[in-house]
Amino acid sequence: MRVLTKKDVQAVYSMKDAIADDKIALAAYSKGDATVPLRTNIDIKPDNGQSLYMPGYAAGKEPALGVKIVSVYPNNIDKGLPSVPATMVSLNPKTGIVSAIIDGTYLTQLRTGALQGAATDLMANPDAKVATLIGTGGQAPTQLEAMLNVRQLTRVYVSDIDKDRAAKFAQDMTRRFGKQFKVEILPAVDLQKAIRASDIITSVTTSKQATFDAADVKPGAHINGIGAYTPQMHEIPAELVKQADIVIFDTMDGVLAEAGDMISPLKNGLVSKDQYSGELGQLINGDIKGRDSHDQITLFKAVGTAVLDVVVAEKILQAAAKADKGTTIDL
Amino acid sequence: MRVLTKKDVQAVYSMKDAIADDKIALAAYSKGDATVPLRTNIDIKPDNGQSLYMPGYAAGKEPALGVKIVSVYPNNIDKGLPSVPATMVSLNPKTGIVSAIIDGTYLTQLRTGALQGAATDLMANPDAKVATLIGTGGQAPTQLEAMLNVRQLTRVYVSDIDKDRAAKFAQDMTRRFGKQFKVEILPAVDLQKAIRASDIITSVTTSKQATFDAADVKPGAHINGIGAYTPQMHEIPAELVKQADIVIFDTMDGVLAEAGDMISPLKNGLVSKDQYSGELGQLINGDIKGRDSHDQITLFKAVGTAVLDVVVAEKILQAAAKADKGTTIDL
Repeated sequence: MRVLTKKDVQAVYSMKDAIADDKIALAAYSKGDATVPLRTNIDIKPDNGQSLYMPGYAAGKEPALGVKIVSVYPNNIDKGLPSVPATMVSLNPKTGIVSAIIDGTYLTQLRTGALQGAATDLMANPDAKVATLIGTGGQAPTQLEAMLNVRQLTRVYVSDIDKDRAAKFAQDMTRRFGKQFKVEILPAVDLQKAIRASDIITSVTTSKQATFDAADVKPGAHINGIGAYTPQMHEIPAELVKQADIVIFDTMDGVLAEAGDMISPLKNGLVSKDQYSGELGQLINGDIKGRDSHDQITLFKAVGTAVLDVVVAEKILQAAAKADKGTTIDL
Repeated sequence: MRVLTKKDVQAVYSMKDAIADDKIALAAYSKGDATVPLRTNIDIKPDNGQSLYMPGYAAGKEPALGVKIVSVYPNNIDKGLPSVPATMVSLNPKTGIVSAIIDGTYLTQLRTGALQGAATDLMANPDAKVATLIGTGGQAPTQLEAMLNVRQLTRVYVSDIDKDRAAKFAQDMTRRFGKQFKVEILPAVDLQKAIRASDIITSVTTSKQATFDAADVKPGAHINGIGAYTPQMHEIPAELVKQADIVIFDTMDGVLAEAGDMISPLKNGLVSKDQYSGELGQLINGDIKGRDSHDQITLFKAVGTAVLDVVVAEKILQAAAKADKGTTIDL
């Protein structure tokens, strides 16, 4: 058994790797090669917490098996602890033996960034130059990193309801990615202007209302909705859902069960179900078609699936074993 | 996070500890303080395997939280690997952070032995001297150890359909426990004679038919049915279920859903449901009564529950932390 911290993972596995592996996972999912049982939720009432168990299995040539354990304990903040601690447990799919314990928080950030990276890679115009990132929370750095990995962006605007936080984030990210990707990372002083200039827009918030105005989205833009993951959350404007030429999800079942910004337009009759084109895995497998003109507006919405966790974790483990990184223990 | 091997566990935690802690777990369960979600099963068809996820939570003064992961891979035997590998993942119930990874195979043996030990302690006559153990598989050593911990036995007969295996087991266990408990451990050459002499009978097999004859059970005997855990398995004779004065389960829901030897007598009208007295936790809590005469025949049937795993794992972790045993890693 190998125990892998965030540092261990970073030493052997890149965002580019994660984007490639998320594509493998999504292709397997849409082919029906994945098993994703219902998540198990346990309420821990005395501590105002919740403990979630998300097992998954990907069959096929590159099988992967495991369970991600995520806890939601808002009171942890008062204790100086992470409020959403997460741990990934990987099993060897050939033997059922636990093979790795991996920092689940970083794994989630990585595979969620990569998920958007895969979509942006496959759906955005190749000549995209300007992007806007809305939301600068825990998932934001890998969202930015993923966009920078798949398109040669010259400028990224970052926006947050907390202006100071956006400015700080832009500064931090400039230090981290500015030189490497030859990109300007700026706080969006005027969000409308930023959106109007953007070829790619990624929203990663838990907002209950639209985080930007559909009317400002320019022809040819690609939009990613990564944050909203409950029926009450609506970060993507309903008008944009209607306006988009192509709407693709990570998983049809997941998005239509959980994502308020895709459920409501359907419920309200603003769009019909056949306007939801299909899954990113289907696009990868060549079963549906994507953008076929420069001016189309494309929309990707994701809520995540355990298949991404198990596949990316298995690939991280393989890389770590090859480089002999992490701590190995015989159980 | 602390990683604990079988050796680490053995160094800090005894069968006596496990029996006490199983009682805590069962009391919590029967009080309604436990959350045991449905087990999640994933079929791994290409490898003829199954991967099982069993989360659980015990609230109350001594809370415990976690998930046991058990895989069933019959083909592992050809590879020289365990066919039922198991790993326990404990979480701190106050913060939701993973606190321990523990050898799940030994944990299961320990808590299952202790489960019977708790029942035997609370249900068998105090002057019990002779016992028979039927089945000498992986769970048998801790079953024997548990009986020896709760009653001053002078002789234990061990029986198996494989006579050589029973002889070998008796030899091994004599070496391990003979002196410590001042007990003779003998292969049952004549099982009928052994049963007739026994104050305690523990059957731990996956047999589809009764492993002994009800007519041979003497007044005052206590019987434990620990093995049979599917509706097809029937190690306890149906007549004995009818004949017993007190019939107690580890969990009512579990036994009536899974244990063939308790389901069938009910289905066939041999017993009525009110002959099933209740749960061992209710006996511990004083909500039902147990044996009240020396001549009563008492029967305990168990199929196990995740509450036992989480509570015993939490107690092992506490003991290991106190003694600073195991490997600690910051994730």
